Amino acid sequence: MRLVVIGGVAAGLSAASRARRLDRSLDILVLEKGGVISYGACGLPYFIEGQVASFDELVVYTPEYFRRERAIEVRTGATVASIAHARRQVTLAGGERIAYDKLVIATGARPRCSGIEGASLPHVFTMQNAEDAQRLRSFLDQRQPRRAVVIGGGYIGLEAAGALRAQGLAVTLYCASPDLAGRDDDQLTGALTRHLERCRVEVRTGTAVNIIEPGRVLDTPCDMVLLAAGLEPNTELAAEAGIEIGRSGAIRTDDRLETNLGGIFAAGDCAQTRHIVTGSPAWIPRGTTANKMGRIAGANAVGGRERFAGVVGTSMVRVCGLAVAFTGLSAAQARNEGFQPVTARVEAKDRAKYFRARPTSVELVADARSRRLLGATVIGEWEVAGRINVVATALTRGMTVEDLENLDLAYAPPYAPVWDPLLLAAQQLLRNLR
Amino acid sequence: MRLVVIGGVAAGLSAASRARRLDRSLDILVLEKGGVISYGACGLPYFIEGQVASFDELVVYTPEYFRRERAIEVRTGATVASIAHARRQVTLAGGERIAYDKLVIATGARPRCSGIEGASLPHVFTMQNAEDAQRLRSFLDQRQPRRAVVIGGGYIGLEAAGALRAQGLAVTLYCASPDLAGRDDDQLTGALTRHLERCRVEVRTGTAVNIIEPGRVLDTPCDMVLLAAGLEPNTELAAEAGIEIGRSGAIRTDDRLETNLGGIFAAGDCAQTRHIVTGSPAWIPRGTTANKMGRIAGANAVGGRERFAGVVGTSMVRVCGLAVAFTGLSAAQARNEGFQPVTARVEAKDRAKYFRARPTSVELVADARSRRLLGATVIGEWEVAGRINVVATALTRGMTVEDLENLDLAYAPPYAPVWDPLLLAAQQLLRNLR
Repeated sequence: MRLVVIGGVAAGLSAASRARRLDRSLDILVLEKGGVISYGACGLPYFIEGQVASFDELVVYTPEYFRRERAIEVRTGATVASIAHARRQVTLAGGERIAYDKLVIATGARPRCSGIEGASLPHVFTMQNAEDAQRLRSFLDQRQPRRAVVIGGGYIGLEAAGALRAQGLAVTLYCASPDLAGRDDDQLTGALTRHLERCRVEVRTGTAVNIIEPGRVLDTPCDMVLLAAGLEPNTELAAEAGIEIGRSGAIRTDDRLETNLGGIFAAGDCAQTRHIVTGSPAWIPRGTTANKMGRIAGANAVGGRERFAGVVGTSMVRVCGLAVAFTGLSAAQARNEGFQPVTARVEAKDRAKYFRARPTSVELVADARSRRLLGATVIGEWEVAGRINVVATALTRGMTVEDLENLDLAYAPPYAPVWDPLLLAAQQLLRNLR
Repeated sequence: MRLVVIGGVAAGLSAASRARRLDRSLDILVLEKGGVISYGACGLPYFIEGQVASFDELVVYTPEYFRRERAIEVRTGATVASIAHARRQVTLAGGERIAYDKLVIATGARPRCSGIEGASLPHVFTMQNAEDAQRLRSFLDQRQPRRAVVIGGGYIGLEAAGALRAQGLAVTLYCASPDLAGRDDDQLTGALTRHLERCRVEVRTGTAVNIIEPGRVLDTPCDMVLLAAGLEPNTELAAEAGIEIGRSGAIRTDDRLETNLGGIFAAGDCAQTRHIVTGSPAWIPRGTTANKMGRIAGANAVGGRERFAGVVGTSMVRVCGLAVAFTGLSAAQARNEGFQPVTARVEAKDRAKYFRARPTSVELVADARSRRLLGATVIGEWEVAGRINVVATALTRGMTVEDLENLDLAYAPPYAPVWDPLLLAAQQLLRNLR
């Protein structure tokens, strides 16, 4: 019995590891087209920034580790060209055929570059994999560019803009969409824009870039370009094998993460998931989700009956020193989904006021009819993750605003104020709901 | 129509303020026996530590503020001697009688000193109110004591021990109970003891102190003693008026916070509440709970129909620089309540490992039969409040360990690792439950 996993980053390695834990005799082979596996892709901006000194720090595990400690065979540089499910066989780019009994597809996502002329010029970089980041870091060290353009205002673009500013470059950020952070949310885009501009990142939202020229992007002269115009799921291999693609554009699976081809599972950034707040299919590529899906796909590939509950869309990003997190739906997204959103936003202290308190902002969104919480944004310096996670937990269980208002949250002056900003926001939202 | 509130700290002032917000014409009088109102009692250890420079920083609002901004009359130095509910009248210690239509009792709690001989010696201090803290601070400044004994290992004792160490004193902490932090939890007591001893606080648990002598406590010579041997609710005034006391020893109310005497409400540290995990009455005095109960008592005193949902027992304390938080039940408490507790404990990184990550520990307790989460302890330096709050939210809604494992929590390398320690603990607990 052999499990083949296509992809050796978060979802793929989680699947392989979980399968091994549940089945000691299984033959497990992971095929990774890149040169390294198991690296913290989300750490790449911090490697660029210089916060992470060496790329090796981002590599969590090596193929040798998997072979030795988990009896999992990992081949790097192994690109799968096709899947022949009738014969239970994958074919590598070089022609080699590999048989499987169960298959996990964890092919991830790639930067969206289509339609941008000049995207392959030598001063244009992406930040998707190890090779990209190392090439950019070398360029920064050797060429000492002074002016950068970042194309894309999603979380990779935002983090990269901060990283390049931290390296002393002048940065202009172009974003085709009017929204930053990939979220239809004027409040959030406004707050991010103001903060970026305070950090002297020039922000040009609603400005599509279709061409990159050697020394400039539109009217902005620059020495380098970082292309982070969103991601698209790697689904071609699956689609060619007859696997259904969902309406989000990613691979469709059931809640056990099995595709329409029995015995083939999909997990991670290449796969569609379910948004718990809307109940609808969604594609929200995240390392955390990839790991969770990978574990479940791995368990089910060896006969488990686990279900993936879905996501609430929790996201967090550091933008020039500020923590920005959101979960669930923005007011605009909620309206599009047929809810009747009511919002409340408070600016509050993140700790007891006599304890070096700093301002933090919390925005909550709820449905006027059901009074159910729908989403939140938290921006600040301290305990931002914790606060957004409380809302994520509340969303997962369909809590109302009253439920949130009554939560028994921790208080200690050095760490949290007696009225947590979340509770103040819930109180305000209840007043707005009346 | 007049609302009288007995007590001018958290619960009392929350009640008065909420009543005013809902009823603009009400006559509201707050009677506070102490000299100041509305101070952050939980900040007193930090005032002792020197973190808070002046006592004024702890005072949130003055009587003048309430009079001017909220049309609430506040009298300090006003001790209520008795309540005659048949006549709807309270009598002050000086004999003055004050009529009320509705009454909120928010008399708080006091340090337990009974049975300790020498408790009123001049070098013995408590840390319950403004006067106590100011007297202690003057003593520290003027007498420069070198050796302190802290009696009591609850959160006030723990914080005070840290505060006195920070002031350079040698500290010995005596605790009559074998448990620290008021929690029947060997793991927690062990972790706290090890940390205190690393910070050179000598810890003597299971050692009752019945007598304080001028220069020593038991065999420990000392220049001062801080008495923090737990709290007891101030219920005498209520009991003498014929108000029922619950089996926890605090004032019994219904879930609208009304006592057995219609028109008299009780809120805050003097009142009993409900533990959401056990469903049983509980007395867990906390500033956060007092504020929430006060708001509800104030709303219901003016005709509202709000309910107090109860608490899950979330607590947080800083002990010599370490954040220690717990919620719900410990394994031992769970066993006493008839659950079949299974635990898991992980030591994990609190952020991405390449981002100045520090160790944090998470212990989870669940019921083997229902797989329901029952409690947690989190110890660390970063995002401890946030992590305990996620569990508090989960407990409030009766989530299972599987529910916790699947939560869509925030990830960003500077703030949280890709596998949050909570999720790792949930995975471990699921293995332990099998």
